[in-house]
Amino acid sequence: MSVTHPRGFTASGVAAGLKSTGAKDVALVVNTGPAFDTASVFTANRCQANPVLWSKEAVRDGVARAVVINSGGANCYTGPEGFQTTHRTAELVAEKLEIGAVDVIVCSTGLIGLLNDRDDLLAGVAAAHAALDTDGGQAAAEAIMTTDSVSKTVVVEGSGWSIGGMAKGAGMLAPQLATMLVVLTTDAVVPASDLDTALRAATRVSFDRLDSDGCMSTNDTVSVLASGASGITPSLDDFTEALTQACTDLAMQLLKDAEGADHEIAITTLHAASEDDAVEVGRSVARSNLFKAAIFGNDPNWGRVLASIGTTGAVFDPADLDVAMNGVWVCRESTPHADPQEVDLTGREVSVTIDLKAGDARATVWTNDLTHAYVHENSAYSS
Amino acid sequence: MSVTHPRGFTASGVAAGLKSTGAKDVALVVNTGPAFDTASVFTANRCQANPVLWSKEAVRDGVARAVVINSGGANCYTGPEGFQTTHRTAELVAEKLEIGAVDVIVCSTGLIGLLNDRDDLLAGVAAAHAALDTDGGQAAAEAIMTTDSVSKTVVVEGSGWSIGGMAKGAGMLAPQLATMLVVLTTDAVVPASDLDTALRAATRVSFDRLDSDGCMSTNDTVSVLASGASGITPSLDDFTEALTQACTDLAMQLLKDAEGADHEIAITTLHAASEDDAVEVGRSVARSNLFKAAIFGNDPNWGRVLASIGTTGAVFDPADLDVAMNGVWVCRESTPHADPQEVDLTGREVSVTIDLKAGDARATVWTNDLTHAYVHENSAYSS
Repeated sequence: MSVTHPRGFTASGVAAGLKSTGAKDVALVVNTGPAFDTASVFTANRCQANPVLWSKEAVRDGVARAVVINSGGANCYTGPEGFQTTHRTAELVAEKLEIGAVDVIVCSTGLIGLLNDRDDLLAGVAAAHAALDTDGGQAAAEAIMTTDSVSKTVVVEGSGWSIGGMAKGAGMLAPQLATMLVVLTTDAVVPASDLDTALRAATRVSFDRLDSDGCMSTNDTVSVLASGASGITPSLDDFTEALTQACTDLAMQLLKDAEGADHEIAITTLHAASEDDAVEVGRSVARSNLFKAAIFGNDPNWGRVLASIGTTGAVFDPADLDVAMNGVWVCRESTPHADPQEVDLTGREVSVTIDLKAGDARATVWTNDLTHAYVHENSAYSS
Repeated sequence: MSVTHPRGFTASGVAAGLKSTGAKDVALVVNTGPAFDTASVFTANRCQANPVLWSKEAVRDGVARAVVINSGGANCYTGPEGFQTTHRTAELVAEKLEIGAVDVIVCSTGLIGLLNDRDDLLAGVAAAHAALDTDGGQAAAEAIMTTDSVSKTVVVEGSGWSIGGMAKGAGMLAPQLATMLVVLTTDAVVPASDLDTALRAATRVSFDRLDSDGCMSTNDTVSVLASGASGITPSLDDFTEALTQACTDLAMQLLKDAEGADHEIAITTLHAASEDDAVEVGRSVARSNLFKAAIFGNDPNWGRVLASIGTTGAVFDPADLDVAMNGVWVCRESTPHADPQEVDLTGREVSVTIDLKAGDARATVWTNDLTHAYVHENSAYSS
């Protein structure tokens, strides 16, 4: 049910011919009210795609009534011509819904440097409008897929209200955000400023801590729309908790579908002097190609973990670090401890635990292993 | 001839059984004087191997008379026991040469977290001492190899003086430095403080700009020894230029022998506001797995170059970047320009040129592509 699970939303997904496979490639999500509060977070990449440039302005007033998304082309590095395509897309949605264009969020995903055929795209937008349905959530979730092998959706139930969501993204999962488009909906009554607070809190500990391949996309967008159709106003804490649950669920779905990965790796840093230290240490390990290749080889190579920790500015004593892999403490006080042969890495889920012995903070960062399939998919993607 | 090309040096390389293959694994380089000036740079990794901890102290007074190196084990994360092994190694060299142990630089390379058999190592050191020869440079260069497929040596001629050098390192080539051991020798008369100035200038534009896989080693050491045996004192500029030439030559040999690589990639950033900006931009591209996989696939994917530039703090206008690949300007003003099909990436050497249009500074950073062979070698290395 995805984004149409909460009351007050319709959605659709149609094929407009942007994808050469003929698969669905235009999605539309419409908030039918009565409220139209919204909040979004966007990529931290300074090179931003045209739809991001547009949407950042569109959501500035905390009001949005629709999100239109195309896959099959990211509309990034496409210049003024590309921006016009984004603008025309928003205008067409607005015209069909009899709303203002600035209340339309636009997202695009696919190859960068590629200008989609504007007529094909606009015909798709018109078809998506015609197909809008209160059961359209699944079709929309399918239409935003690129190299995803499965569609990603979530539903979290509150007390008389709910959150629905869909996400796409399989490669380029990255710090700050990934090429990752996420639309979240709720029928709770949540003013835009609270939505913003809740969304930033939720993404900080979910999507922001995915670091599949260290690359940061130009198109990342996470938007939440609140229709208020339940008439219920949850506490900010309750809403934030539910939104965090929805974001974490979608983030784990993204992690599991990362291009070519054989393992999902959770890197947990304990006893850090600060949460920032814990995240920095986790990220440094998540970005070590040597470590990631070792996990692909089912090799509990803790030396590569310590070598990565050493590149950070976190507080720790280089001679007193402990590291466990899948619960086996293979390194204590920066020297060999348990026999690495006790570590079984044949399952998909791998945990790395690092004890910095420097404080009380902790954080988990998620990544994938570096595999032949990753290299294959990313060397063959555009050519 | 390597490190024994300049006058005033002997060297050797012997097999001590540290490598299971029976290949040479202990090297010794001795400065026979009359001068014993030295300078070194070490890894910036905060987790440093025992030989690095020792050698940093040993070179502090600007005097060193020998360098002893073992391959077959990095002696890193091996605790006090490992430090004792390093200490005993230095003491044995000192005893044999009738010098002080603090005038002996010790380097180790190979697996981290592995404690070599001390008796085997010391027997190897004694054998290396017995084998010292003014023609021993090549044997020493072979004894320091790990996953290197070829030994790396260099000779640069000055006016009546020369520089010789050897290097090892094939994976983990990285920022700051790589697992890279380099010994440089010269018969020029160069006081230790000038050696230090020249070495820092030379490594800054050579080894420091290699970023093969973004990983930073725990054992990196670059040492230069000056015997003064030529009796000639070159100008600091002349010596720095020759040393830079030697370091750049060895760095390119390391780049070409990087584990599993199919391409050597030179990323040149033009018109940067500062040299730091140019290096930051080059490094960001050098560390993009998506970009590196694209080059492996002979795919001139300039969008991944721009996406990487956007992650930096350098001065530029995101809407006005130019990118060329192998001389073809595939992107102008952040939009598509020449047809990417014009770019031929089938050769090993690839150039990426980025025009930031923000100033007069420039820098080149070198990296390799991300290949199946890289994943294979690094997933199978220790297991």
